[in-house]
Amino acid sequence: MSTLKTAKLSLVALCGLFISITQAQEPLLVEKQSFQMDNYTTVGGETIKDVTVGWEAYGELNEAKDNVILITHFFSGNSHAAGKYTPNDPQAGYWDAIIGPGKAIDTNKFYVVSVDSLVNAYPNLPSVITTGPASINPDTGKPYGLDFPVVTIRDFVNVQKALLESKGINKLHAVVGASMGSLQAIEWASAYPNWVDRMVSVIGTAKMDAWTIAGLEMWSQAIKLDPNWRGGDYYDHDAPLDGVTMAQAMITHGAMHPEIFNQSAPQQPTLPADGLKTVNNQLPAAKWLFDSSRARAPLADANHILYLVRANQLFIAGHKKTLEQGLANVTAKSLFLPSSNDLLLMPYMAEHANAMLNDLGKQSELEYIEGPWGHLNGLFSIQSKAAKLAQFLNQ
Amino acid sequence: MSTLKTAKLSLVALCGLFISITQAQEPLLVEKQSFQMDNYTTVGGETIKDVTVGWEAYGELNEAKDNVILITHFFSGNSHAAGKYTPNDPQAGYWDAIIGPGKAIDTNKFYVVSVDSLVNAYPNLPSVITTGPASINPDTGKPYGLDFPVVTIRDFVNVQKALLESKGINKLHAVVGASMGSLQAIEWASAYPNWVDRMVSVIGTAKMDAWTIAGLEMWSQAIKLDPNWRGGDYYDHDAPLDGVTMAQAMITHGAMHPEIFNQSAPQQPTLPADGLKTVNNQLPAAKWLFDSSRARAPLADANHILYLVRANQLFIAGHKKTLEQGLANVTAKSLFLPSSNDLLLMPYMAEHANAMLNDLGKQSELEYIEGPWGHLNGLFSIQSKAAKLAQFLNQ
Repeated sequence: MSTLKTAKLSLVALCGLFISITQAQEPLLVEKQSFQMDNYTTVGGETIKDVTVGWEAYGELNEAKDNVILITHFFSGNSHAAGKYTPNDPQAGYWDAIIGPGKAIDTNKFYVVSVDSLVNAYPNLPSVITTGPASINPDTGKPYGLDFPVVTIRDFVNVQKALLESKGINKLHAVVGASMGSLQAIEWASAYPNWVDRMVSVIGTAKMDAWTIAGLEMWSQAIKLDPNWRGGDYYDHDAPLDGVTMAQAMITHGAMHPEIFNQSAPQQPTLPADGLKTVNNQLPAAKWLFDSSRARAPLADANHILYLVRANQLFIAGHKKTLEQGLANVTAKSLFLPSSNDLLLMPYMAEHANAMLNDLGKQSELEYIEGPWGHLNGLFSIQSKAAKLAQFLNQ
Repeated sequence: MSTLKTAKLSLVALCGLFISITQAQEPLLVEKQSFQMDNYTTVGGETIKDVTVGWEAYGELNEAKDNVILITHFFSGNSHAAGKYTPNDPQAGYWDAIIGPGKAIDTNKFYVVSVDSLVNAYPNLPSVITTGPASINPDTGKPYGLDFPVVTIRDFVNVQKALLESKGINKLHAVVGASMGSLQAIEWASAYPNWVDRMVSVIGTAKMDAWTIAGLEMWSQAIKLDPNWRGGDYYDHDAPLDGVTMAQAMITHGAMHPEIFNQSAPQQPTLPADGLKTVNNQLPAAKWLFDSSRARAPLADANHILYLVRANQLFIAGHKKTLEQGLANVTAKSLFLPSSNDLLLMPYMAEHANAMLNDLGKQSELEYIEGPWGHLNGLFSIQSKAAKLAQFLNQ
């Protein structure tokens, strides 16, 4: 119960950035680093110059360079998966509950690497380093806007691979990711099976289905409806913060199960005078959600959200004609950890991937994360799977 | 399977207006009528002049005037619950599967009345007669816009009551409604217990919770983001059809379970060239949903949707300080029919109301509607509860 309470307070304070529960022990101190590529050619065949992404590492790389665990992050997240930048940081990285010395992902044993995605949703957050539509196009000296090429989950993976290769790494003990991070983990296992010994998909899917593609579209359409979006060309004007506010509010709402949302949101008095006066006044639960979303909207970039949505919408593991062909490539042992009350990437998605891998003769297992959080159980209830994760990683 | 197929085709054709499955028998022929009140004073204390609503009736009123069943409609619906206006109509009313001679709600026995709500979402549909922000304010000769007073579910009930009283009716054998119609049915049973002998709540709730209030807010915010909305004052300009399109797309998406959505939407080829070219191109599933929504957007009125959302957001049966106090008033026998895979008004809501009524010593029961449709099982799978409904209405 006290864990739940801490997590709830954290959500109220930083709702939607999905910062994890702080741990009552000495923090791991970490440093954001940066990785640069002069040129990167996308899956779509477009070349981007000066691609730069941030990354962090926890633990030490061994001499054989075979103790690497890659952590891939979720939609609203970044590479700050564990530890703190300074001892006084109010929050540790989002999975600090399971990454650190002696924890499930044990930094006494493993070298844990985490990388900011391309087109990260929060390029204006000081701790995020990313390349996307808000970046300066070296050819024009101005932000790319919609001239930035569409990128896919495979592109995120390819940039991570280039970073690892630059360190002489060519093998992953495991790749572990939640939500959009799970998409990357599965893509790794399908695209580069020789690299990946173990794959952990938390609250994830191996393929986007029509219902989820249409649901993601709402986040984009909210931004496109905002007149300040200007077809993506807003960098010399006011940013489309109303659209971003709505998109973030939808993400948070969809990521939370009613059980926790109703516990966290303010209660509504019967027939509140404000709400009965005009449809312009928001009711308490809506105002609470939108106010917290509006407060963090300036940290996001509207176009980056559109590109992230598209990367997710296009996802099918392995980019083959069928998912079965994509999963046939996998040689990793797989572990799926869906949240039993997830409303965003529902458990049927992980169940489907797990069943298909088993049907293909692969080694794959699945356990449900239980908790009141819905999709966010993948962050706030992950501690309940610490023992399972440790066992899986050490087998 | 053939019922499912018919329903699917109907959804593709008229997605979101939620027209029901047509029945392979002679149609009941019905006529839209109109009811007018010189003045109506809202729950909020505002007086509206010249309130007019449409209504329909099926069957015959008996001499004792005690064979009346009132049908209350859902958010995107209207009073056309059964039958056809002409034999050539492509679709019958939405619950034609259960309303008619010899059907569950047997028009050989009962006089079935159905009324267009105030602020109906589709005032531009020829068969809808309603009063709301798009109506002409007699004091100004111009549409009310946001000067129209906020109305509540109780106001819908009060107008229905005035209509029934004008026919000398003062007793309901039953009130039966789906979704927003269920809110009205429960409100009837709580506000006017002496009237209501039986109450049937299909895919409904007795109270809005914070999660649902915030979810409904998204439909309003989509409209408010559209610059054509102009603070509600758009009647001399282009209507905010982009906002209405998005609101309707969200309603349809939320009302359908992935099971049926994924069967109905077009499949996405792996890495479609259009989608990889620019984030401006919608992917097939999103395009399918938005195109069908855009086609019917001109039939809706944006402000009416805002007012309907608000009526739903303010709902608590009985308008007492607590739901328990509101339900303590109920004397009707109650039947709750939630859809087991409803994602819009989840089954926990009906379960909660049913449990509370039983705890209060009332007679209430609950059965789940099963089917692939999610919330829309309340329309497209209602036939599966025909026997239960008939038994409940005849007990």
